[in-house]
Amino acid sequence: MKEKVKVGWVGVGRRAHGMLKNIFSAMEDVEITAICDIDEAGLERGLAIIRENKLPEPILTKNYDDILNNPEIDAIIIMTPWMGRVGLAIRAMRAGKYVGIEVGSAYDLKECFDLVDTYEETGVPVMMLENCCYGRREMMALNIAEQGLFGEIVHCNGAYAHHLEDEELFREMVVEPKGDKVTHYRLHDYMLRNCDQYATHEFGPISKVLKLNRGNKLLTISSMASKSRGIKQYAKDKFGPDSYYAQVDYKQGDIVSSNILCAGGETIHLTLDTTLPRSYYSREFTVRGTKGLCAEERHSVYLDFMENGPQNLENEEEMFKTYDHPLHKEYVELGEKSGHSGIDWLVGRAFIEAVKNGTNTPIDAYDTALWLSIGPLSEASINKGGAPVEVPDFTKGKWINREPIVEGKYCLDKVCEDKNTKIY
Amino acid sequence: MKEKVKVGWVGVGRRAHGMLKNIFSAMEDVEITAICDIDEAGLERGLAIIRENKLPEPILTKNYDDILNNPEIDAIIIMTPWMGRVGLAIRAMRAGKYVGIEVGSAYDLKECFDLVDTYEETGVPVMMLENCCYGRREMMALNIAEQGLFGEIVHCNGAYAHHLEDEELFREMVVEPKGDKVTHYRLHDYMLRNCDQYATHEFGPISKVLKLNRGNKLLTISSMASKSRGIKQYAKDKFGPDSYYAQVDYKQGDIVSSNILCAGGETIHLTLDTTLPRSYYSREFTVRGTKGLCAEERHSVYLDFMENGPQNLENEEEMFKTYDHPLHKEYVELGEKSGHSGIDWLVGRAFIEAVKNGTNTPIDAYDTALWLSIGPLSEASINKGGAPVEVPDFTKGKWINREPIVEGKYCLDKVCEDKNTKIY
Repeated sequence: MKEKVKVGWVGVGRRAHGMLKNIFSAMEDVEITAICDIDEAGLERGLAIIRENKLPEPILTKNYDDILNNPEIDAIIIMTPWMGRVGLAIRAMRAGKYVGIEVGSAYDLKECFDLVDTYEETGVPVMMLENCCYGRREMMALNIAEQGLFGEIVHCNGAYAHHLEDEELFREMVVEPKGDKVTHYRLHDYMLRNCDQYATHEFGPISKVLKLNRGNKLLTISSMASKSRGIKQYAKDKFGPDSYYAQVDYKQGDIVSSNILCAGGETIHLTLDTTLPRSYYSREFTVRGTKGLCAEERHSVYLDFMENGPQNLENEEEMFKTYDHPLHKEYVELGEKSGHSGIDWLVGRAFIEAVKNGTNTPIDAYDTALWLSIGPLSEASINKGGAPVEVPDFTKGKWINREPIVEGKYCLDKVCEDKNTKIY
Repeated sequence: MKEKVKVGWVGVGRRAHGMLKNIFSAMEDVEITAICDIDEAGLERGLAIIRENKLPEPILTKNYDDILNNPEIDAIIIMTPWMGRVGLAIRAMRAGKYVGIEVGSAYDLKECFDLVDTYEETGVPVMMLENCCYGRREMMALNIAEQGLFGEIVHCNGAYAHHLEDEELFREMVVEPKGDKVTHYRLHDYMLRNCDQYATHEFGPISKVLKLNRGNKLLTISSMASKSRGIKQYAKDKFGPDSYYAQVDYKQGDIVSSNILCAGGETIHLTLDTTLPRSYYSREFTVRGTKGLCAEERHSVYLDFMENGPQNLENEEEMFKTYDHPLHKEYVELGEKSGHSGIDWLVGRAFIEAVKNGTNTPIDAYDTALWLSIGPLSEASINKGGAPVEVPDFTKGKWINREPIVEGKYCLDKVCEDKNTKIY
């Protein structure tokens, strides 16, 4: 086992900042060996974080090949914008480096196929760093599901319900933009694409619960998008009706609603809900079985041996006491780390532990490809008026025999590296 | 205006019992002139209610023609099972009687077309007695929508989320049924049909908010159904694995999820969720606009001039004070009547007032046909793997010019018959 994982870091934007500062550079068994960014400002941001954390200074480079060709580097973490990100991952795999990539969407299915092909050719793992798979609620649901207490699982629901105008699309933008420069690529994408391009926060955990790629798979997806009005209204109110952003047409529908059918007969419903005003963030995470449910909607868990009634609403905190996932218990014992209530820390550790142990990642190449594919698949269905679109079997049949991940050496931190815990 | 509306009552089952006892026979301006039921027991139940309420005894008959041919009778209320109900309504319209019919689903689109044809030939109104259109939350949302405070409405969501096994499907059934007799027609339907057959509780109010048939219409619907496991598991646990009900196959998927596209570019998402265990009833009623939302999920109303934050969760009671629909305010002033927090009373009054005033009903033949059609349309889509199915334009183009109902003489009770209030 490696004592220290040497990481090449690629892209130091907004999301990368938090992950580098609070998560990866805070791990005792990780060294940030090199930082790569095409902008000088990105390199400076990265260096500042390392200095702030009083760590050895990394190599700084604008040339990705410097990372790929560095024999010291074990793993590459890619935090660049979505466009071209999969290509960078593929190059890293070909160079024999473990790859962690931020969540997001592919633009075309070809990217997903190429990722899988590269994995099958090289055997090098790639992991989407989907932090919401490590959410306390989602982990508890997985734990309950694995104990069979939901009975047979029949349906899952999830959403990315997050009003993004203030928080993402127009953040760091001047109050009255006069120019035509798009500052954030997601805003630019919203002008031109119409799909569920941000499904993985809810779909990742659902994928785990429904054992996709491991005994189950998606058959078809049907998506419909509402008209697009939210961003324009926001821009009109904030920047004035004559402003560039109030005049632009946005292709992205305000609400995208997708129905998905699984080989096991289960259905999944996903919603993208990011551009209309709302008062609260939600992933609407819901698992429904013949013996019980977990529903974020009312923070409720109900299992059929419990007395049924309104006392099961808002009972989630109580249920954590009994059904917290072992990994989460262990995490809490270690003392909570920063970053989205620990989910950033846990997903980071899952990746680093795989690198240290030379094992596959708990979210693997097939999962990453499938999760990336929801964007282009929903786009295709929307453009066919909601016609169901076939979901490729990225495993080419291997889903039939692949076992759920249940064993493996998994440690939360250096201090507990002798503990045997589950990879999942 | 009629002083007294004379009603012929058809079908005295479980639902009819409450509506006859607490609603229609409790109205001073209504006389139950005749009761028709094919079963002697139904007639006896009906007579008992009338006697209990100390009212003049009605004609009792098993022959529907006795109701149709009775020149005294102004209106017919049909509370029979779904099968054949539309046919009874059509005969009533041909006999020149106003018709109120209980909520439910058509079995085939032909029923919907026939209902509309009959309305257009006879000019006799027919009204689905959809009580949830008169829910306090739904009425408030309609009021807010009519004031334009949601901005442009973009998406609506709704569900019928109600665990029916105990409450409906197996109610009044012996504990260990040995025979093969199905006691409730909806259970029998669940054995043989797979569709959203009970969409109107959520779709009716959404239809009002989105002005369907009055400036807007549905284009297509795409539905997917999960596997069917809930009823079988319930029967296994309750009646034993060898019982008839645990052995039967049920076609009805546990969860049916439908996406609908409107001519105005709005989307609607509907869920039927009746056979898996759950802890609470919900219609998941949600209206989303460019300026605000109403969401049953968290009992939340948010409008963009309010400060945005968690204080908008569970703020519904507060919002009622400002945005209660005028009709609901009037209703509360009169003193709350029984039956589902007043919704039964209000829908009953809406029907009776139309009869008294000789006006069209606020839920009319086109609405009734459209709402009945969700069952067969979702069935068709499910059977095509979720392919979007065209929704007929039952108005044959009249939706383009039909004005929203905003005026009319509408009274809640005899005591306020001089008030001018809105029909809606």
